[in-house]
Amino acid sequence: MRRILLLSILLLTATSSGAQNATDSLIIRQIHDFSLVNGKAYDWLNHICLNIGGRLAGSPQSEKAIQYTYEVMDSIVPGNVSLQEVMVVNWKRGEKENCYTTDKKGNKTHYRITSLGNSVGTPLDGITAPVIKLNSFAELNSLSTADVQGKIVFYDEPMDQRFINSFSAYSSCGSIRWYGPKGAAPLGALATINRSLTHASDDHPHTGSIVYVDSIPKIPGAAISTSGADLLSKALAEDPDLTLTLEMDCKMLDDIKSYNVIGEIKGTEHPEEIIVVGGHLDAWDNGGQGAHDDGAGCVQSMEVLNIFNSLNIRPKRTIRIVMFMNEENGVRGGKKYADNAKEKNEKHIAAIESDAGGFSPRGYYMDGDADKLSMVKKWIPLFQPYLLHSFDQVGGGADISGLKSQGAVVMGLYPDSQRYFDYHHAETDTFDKVNRRELQLGAAALASMAYLISEYGLDNIP
Amino acid sequence: MRRILLLSILLLTATSSGAQNATDSLIIRQIHDFSLVNGKAYDWLNHICLNIGGRLAGSPQSEKAIQYTYEVMDSIVPGNVSLQEVMVVNWKRGEKENCYTTDKKGNKTHYRITSLGNSVGTPLDGITAPVIKLNSFAELNSLSTADVQGKIVFYDEPMDQRFINSFSAYSSCGSIRWYGPKGAAPLGALATINRSLTHASDDHPHTGSIVYVDSIPKIPGAAISTSGADLLSKALAEDPDLTLTLEMDCKMLDDIKSYNVIGEIKGTEHPEEIIVVGGHLDAWDNGGQGAHDDGAGCVQSMEVLNIFNSLNIRPKRTIRIVMFMNEENGVRGGKKYADNAKEKNEKHIAAIESDAGGFSPRGYYMDGDADKLSMVKKWIPLFQPYLLHSFDQVGGGADISGLKSQGAVVMGLYPDSQRYFDYHHAETDTFDKVNRRELQLGAAALASMAYLISEYGLDNIP
Repeated sequence: MRRILLLSILLLTATSSGAQNATDSLIIRQIHDFSLVNGKAYDWLNHICLNIGGRLAGSPQSEKAIQYTYEVMDSIVPGNVSLQEVMVVNWKRGEKENCYTTDKKGNKTHYRITSLGNSVGTPLDGITAPVIKLNSFAELNSLSTADVQGKIVFYDEPMDQRFINSFSAYSSCGSIRWYGPKGAAPLGALATINRSLTHASDDHPHTGSIVYVDSIPKIPGAAISTSGADLLSKALAEDPDLTLTLEMDCKMLDDIKSYNVIGEIKGTEHPEEIIVVGGHLDAWDNGGQGAHDDGAGCVQSMEVLNIFNSLNIRPKRTIRIVMFMNEENGVRGGKKYADNAKEKNEKHIAAIESDAGGFSPRGYYMDGDADKLSMVKKWIPLFQPYLLHSFDQVGGGADISGLKSQGAVVMGLYPDSQRYFDYHHAETDTFDKVNRRELQLGAAALASMAYLISEYGLDNIP
Repeated sequence: MRRILLLSILLLTATSSGAQNATDSLIIRQIHDFSLVNGKAYDWLNHICLNIGGRLAGSPQSEKAIQYTYEVMDSIVPGNVSLQEVMVVNWKRGEKENCYTTDKKGNKTHYRITSLGNSVGTPLDGITAPVIKLNSFAELNSLSTADVQGKIVFYDEPMDQRFINSFSAYSSCGSIRWYGPKGAAPLGALATINRSLTHASDDHPHTGSIVYVDSIPKIPGAAISTSGADLLSKALAEDPDLTLTLEMDCKMLDDIKSYNVIGEIKGTEHPEEIIVVGGHLDAWDNGGQGAHDDGAGCVQSMEVLNIFNSLNIRPKRTIRIVMFMNEENGVRGGKKYADNAKEKNEKHIAAIESDAGGFSPRGYYMDGDADKLSMVKKWIPLFQPYLLHSFDQVGGGADISGLKSQGAVVMGLYPDSQRYFDYHHAETDTFDKVNRRELQLGAAALASMAYLISEYGLDNIP
């Protein structure tokens, strides 16, 4: 019975691929079967999450992750794994992340916060000040120093639920975190807190990095949970004279040496043409495990290596698997990789990143030369049996963006986005939130795309 | 900023709908905006799961669910909600669900099981017998009475991971549960246990109904968790002389009176043409809350009523929301509804069921007259901005299948299926497994389809 079923699956797939090469269709079926039945990405993710955990660049955990992924890849392609040295941002969260309001009678109410990545800390005894609440980042434009001076700015802009792709909602109100401190400092703000960037309503604060510029005073930034933001908002409405106290001992140290981890299968016909597949190895340090962000992308990328090796697919072009370091608060690994590629005059024809969670794959973001993109789009029918339909969104990924200017088509795996920001940069981004099948389907989608590009390149219509 | 964004969303949607009526595109956008921002399905589901819980037909919980959904719908369309009497299967799980092996030294090992729905119980002191393990249901064909007589049959067939739609994997090995007892009884088996029908590897047994026929002796059937099945399999390999003891006190009582709950918005132009949208109100009673199966489908269907009412959409054809009773172990509600429709000579042009979980919607299963289906498929571009792409699978749903022979097009909402069987019929099917946005997107997909059919019918090309 099961052999009959397998046959029918294979026939179905071969048929549905229409004008495509039947061999490609069968190989993509084998890739999916292998990933779903024998794939190891889920087990590797288990190790990275439960035995290593949060692994911000420069941390001991990041070193363990480098060592582990090196060993995994070296067990698949012995001798073809290397470390690429990179100086990374070395920010330390510290121990203190306290936030409370005090009313005129001295009653205190505590709120859960998380320091934002790269933020300066507060003075030892904290910052205590009145609060000005803004309903959006844009409201800053209508305020003067008289409104803000000596206060803590509380950005309470919620993620817009109406976007279908939740990343669009993130982009549309991300300024309250990225530019929160930098935006408020020129008006004399002492610190900022922002409503967590999530669609969920819960008590988990979501961290993430902020942008400072040298010309503007650096003030501390923290994120408050969405439930906390609602409570604080209500408390301020009832008593505008509340003061807020922030105590944070995070700090920036000097850059420190770390590594990208790179595994490779040399192309048989055009070894000089390189296809990068990668994710970022670093993950936030605020209690989560970096499961969806971006343990998932790392183990899926390593699975590509495993699939090619196990199915004995000999790629015509070079497949290079990269675990990028320091994406979260510096993108130093991605920059280093691109700089090095340019220096060595390497020819990267494509770079594929998985950094949007280990959920059911829905398609690919893409960017690059129009002719090359239209060539990729001819392969869409090969992906549809696996329910990848969305290939029209523009994008790639933070770590591979530097390769675009070198002529590579950049692509980002596009998984279902509805749950992503429930866990993103929060203590809830843990292994139990990942479904094995969804993760392995994403790995198969990466391997399938890498296979097609390696087989045909991107210069000729197949 | 947010008003600008909304405008750009609307424009994007209107453009992407191509040749479709721009009004339809805008209304479908409004439906989605409303469902994502103001929809109540998630809150209703919270109540059904946490305040009512498992609600098998004939149980006190099922009565609470009838009352609650009646009240919710009556608050939306006062005076347009009715109860449709239906005699339902009245099976009681009982208290005892014990399973253990005993070796020659008298050492016992316990396993977690769940009695299968509609199963007879064991004698009071249980059934103790040697075990014959089968790797598939099909293996029964090669066995004789000499192999099976006096034994407990253990079906250890796993769900095939290779199917992309997990419902196909469920169908392909569902016989071990549905027909397990009926298949083994003629060979003299005393009882059967089957590996739980799930892709997950954990210790949660998954129940579900079985099929008895009067001509074959009724023997008890139970499901063991997948981890338990692996352990039992290993234990039997090491010691084939183990005996297994099953103790179950489930029993079938006489049919009992219950109800379908029906809410309606009368069509303004063709009130005689009816479009059913529904889910089933009953849910298994083994510790779960019937969150995905099928609380999700019920609250999504009620949301359709809420969306039409809140947006003041006056449908040209009648929209009828049905909470079907007793789908899980009798489909009595669905049969009753169809019988009644036939008796009254009602004209059902379409019936849409949501009974595949509250996950991100991916498309629709469909079945019925080819011309009518091709008319529905002309609307696909209107659904694509919401990431519904899959409209090629044949199917509808258990509760609406009787309406197909009366000329209705039947449709089943097709949500992402990867996680569904992790929770299906298990104690893990709880509210916390449902994501608000995914659930509300499904409701919007139902409302959008109901809107289009109500606007154009299925007899003419729009």
